[in-house]
Amino acid sequence: MSLLVVGSVAFDAVETPFGKRDKLLGGSATHFSISASYFTDVRVVGIVGGDFSAEEEAVFKRHGVDTSDLERIPEGKTFFWSGRYDYDLNTAHTLDTQLNVFADFKPKLSDASRRSRLVFLGNIQPDLQREVREQVRGAELVALDTMNYWIESTREALVEAIKVVNVLIVNDAEARQLADEPNLIRAARKILSWGPKALIVKRGEYGAALFTSETYFAIPAYPLEAVFDPTGAGDTFAGGFMGYLASQETLDEAAMRRAMIYGSVMASFNVEEFGTERVQRLTHDEINGRFSTFKRMTHFDEIPFERAMRAAPEPVG
Amino acid sequence: MSLLVVGSVAFDAVETPFGKRDKLLGGSATHFSISASYFTDVRVVGIVGGDFSAEEEAVFKRHGVDTSDLERIPEGKTFFWSGRYDYDLNTAHTLDTQLNVFADFKPKLSDASRRSRLVFLGNIQPDLQREVREQVRGAELVALDTMNYWIESTREALVEAIKVVNVLIVNDAEARQLADEPNLIRAARKILSWGPKALIVKRGEYGAALFTSETYFAIPAYPLEAVFDPTGAGDTFAGGFMGYLASQETLDEAAMRRAMIYGSVMASFNVEEFGTERVQRLTHDEINGRFSTFKRMTHFDEIPFERAMRAAPEPVG
Repeated sequence: MSLLVVGSVAFDAVETPFGKRDKLLGGSATHFSISASYFTDVRVVGIVGGDFSAEEEAVFKRHGVDTSDLERIPEGKTFFWSGRYDYDLNTAHTLDTQLNVFADFKPKLSDASRRSRLVFLGNIQPDLQREVREQVRGAELVALDTMNYWIESTREALVEAIKVVNVLIVNDAEARQLADEPNLIRAARKILSWGPKALIVKRGEYGAALFTSETYFAIPAYPLEAVFDPTGAGDTFAGGFMGYLASQETLDEAAMRRAMIYGSVMASFNVEEFGTERVQRLTHDEINGRFSTFKRMTHFDEIPFERAMRAAPEPVG
Repeated sequence: MSLLVVGSVAFDAVETPFGKRDKLLGGSATHFSISASYFTDVRVVGIVGGDFSAEEEAVFKRHGVDTSDLERIPEGKTFFWSGRYDYDLNTAHTLDTQLNVFADFKPKLSDASRRSRLVFLGNIQPDLQREVREQVRGAELVALDTMNYWIESTREALVEAIKVVNVLIVNDAEARQLADEPNLIRAARKILSWGPKALIVKRGEYGAALFTSETYFAIPAYPLEAVFDPTGAGDTFAGGFMGYLASQETLDEAAMRRAMIYGSVMASFNVEEFGTERVQRLTHDEINGRFSTFKRMTHFDEIPFERAMRAAPEPVG
């Protein structure tokens, strides 16, 4: 059941039209692991500075997240990101990025981490992602996330990393940019030709899609009347997706589809409050409730077609 | 089983990156009725000029569409629209609009038309839509389409027309603009508060959604590797939706959901070739095939949740 995440642990300062926070526990590994913790045991590989206190540590502990491989640099400072969202909550405007200890991050995996069954390579430099991937050769499923910055600056290294993972998880624009192809269906075909068995495309308020070479699965987003803070939604999705898969014996298409729903459910909670605040205090009933809502809002009957049809028109001529 | 459509019959000149056509049979009533004709008998109320020849008439006839209420003005010219699409096929750039006989269109309904069970009020001036609606008081379901032009220029009249129909069918941007609300879920709530029992929102490549005051249903678009000419996709969707409903005895939520799929199937064919060319020569097997694909690409199992879950974290404190 073991699930490993490699990524950033950070402090975020976030400003939205609805309020602001100066210091939120954030970063891809944080959002991912808290989300996944509702489904399975998680280990996190990351790096933090001396400002990472017992209070932050306690958040991970409370969710049963193993932080043995979270490297501490007492004399350094934790990665800091500051951003602002306007009423169009789809776009984050970065105000400040201080990489701090994250600038020299070299993921160090303990033996236990190397034996993980599932691995999520959060959004870090692609060569580092590939180095980690080589250390988890026995993993049953390795997924990779990235961002436009790496697509633009280290495209070749990124493609090499994508070639050796099983699942790529990106957003709509990233998939099109990565494949240099505006049509998403064609973009997916191209990306899958590089090696991954599956491509997951996150589409924000329009939902998410799962592509394999043989199948296509698409779901809407959970309908929210208000998005409060979208920071970390993508990693929270990935956490629900990978966490659910880790709880399953068979990682087949059916399990992947259910995992897509769980990912979407977790992301829908994430955006309702600042940072990880909402996801930190979820109950299983709340998660289950939204899973059922997804079933209700996508269900339709297949009925004998003949009943619906009138005779076809006569051929022309 | 009778279905009535009131709208434009036009000639379109269309230019896309893939080719051009100088004179295509187009208009909302045309796209709608050819699409709906695969499911039910359709009557069309519209107006054409002397340039509307036996050749165009034959297209309607071949699909069993009743054109008795299609008014002819021999000395006038048929509505003409000319547009261009760039590689972003989502946006039509209008090059020329000649309303011609359509400028003075006053829908005239025969007794048979007035007795229609289902009515689609295509995109025309909202006061005209309301006048037609008053003439079909016995209809079981009346649906209305509109566009940004009417939202901007005759908003009050449009809202009055929406109040007296059962279903509003618009696209994503129109729904938000109409409700003056960027969040689609809230926009839908507001629009439904005016009177309609259902709101259908078309989202192009992201699919479509059906809102009622109690339920939400959302589907992806049929995955197409290439869109050739999107002209008329919305009316073709409406034709599949209303045509399927007309074939059903009970117009309940389950029927509406299946109708959404049929609408999406028909629209997916429409965009594959110029104008109505592809939809004119469909077979029932082709339509049924894509309906089944929709089922496959949206299906996931609901399984006992407990299996997926680990123990919840201890409460804070």
